[in-house]
Amino acid sequence: MAKERAAEISTCEINGKKPSPKRSNKTVFYKHKGDFRWGRVKDELYKDKGAEWSNIIRRVLIGGHGETTKFHLRYFEILSNGNSSLELHRHEHVVICVKGKGVVLTGRRKRTMGFMDTVYISPNTVHQLSNPYQEPFGFFCIVNSRRDRPRVLQK
Amino acid sequence: MAKERAAEISTCEINGKKPSPKRSNKTVFYKHKGDFRWGRVKDELYKDKGAEWSNIIRRVLIGGHGETTKFHLRYFEILSNGNSSLELHRHEHVVICVKGKGVVLTGRRKRTMGFMDTVYISPNTVHQLSNPYQEPFGFFCIVNSRRDRPRVLQK
Repeated sequence: MAKERAAEISTCEINGKKPSPKRSNKTVFYKHKGDFRWGRVKDELYKDKGAEWSNIIRRVLIGGHGETTKFHLRYFEILSNGNSSLELHRHEHVVICVKGKGVVLTGRRKRTMGFMDTVYISPNTVHQLSNPYQEPFGFFCIVNSRRDRPRVLQK
Repeated sequence: MAKERAAEISTCEINGKKPSPKRSNKTVFYKHKGDFRWGRVKDELYKDKGAEWSNIIRRVLIGGHGETTKFHLRYFEILSNGNSSLELHRHEHVVICVKGKGVVLTGRRKRTMGFMDTVYISPNTVHQLSNPYQEPFGFFCIVNSRRDRPRVLQK
């Protein structure tokens, strides 16, 4: 069984920073610059520390610019041999594969995800995303804007 | 100026039906069957009536299966020469183009959307999506699960 430990950092807020309240809530067009990069959207770390994940880039499209949505939209890219944390939390995930392919573990089940495959991960389901392939695995992950901290598990 | 009239049907709930509370909130994998069709996801009308829109298919991935997310994920496809309602509402839209190309009007500004272009439409911004091109225009539209009824405008 997986050994549980408290998450040191939430995936909600990178570096514990909240979106600036000074940013206005206005219509924005995020032009795709190619290869899943967008104007006004910067590259971030998946989390700022932790040894249980590797090789992940994070791009927050909706959630860091003062939007009032009840959800955030993030793009993640897991490079070859990378993986996200093995974790669980009360909030749900919706994951849409848009680039390459990868593997999603939910509970004890592993499935390969290809272009446009979509998974709804229900509350308190142990899950992990990984990329055992050569090419990068890119996906959107949509979450509630208000959400609990993940509990990171160790195999 | 646009002439306003009350919306007869909300885009929230097709035919006024709410998702069945009997459906369980469990993890689901929506396999992409190709051409932006998914297993367990049916084709629906964009709205069940109204003359101000045309040629739109609607596929609800997240929102109709008992999920507890604070958001819904829908895929829409506007066929050649089709358009959505010209409308506004308090809730926000996040639109991600994934197939073909189309045009998004926000306020007085029109922009062409291609693959992965993403737009955040802020509250009470008049907007419309249309497809003046030959090929279908497909996009995800993410909205809050609890949202107000659109007000449909007529040019």
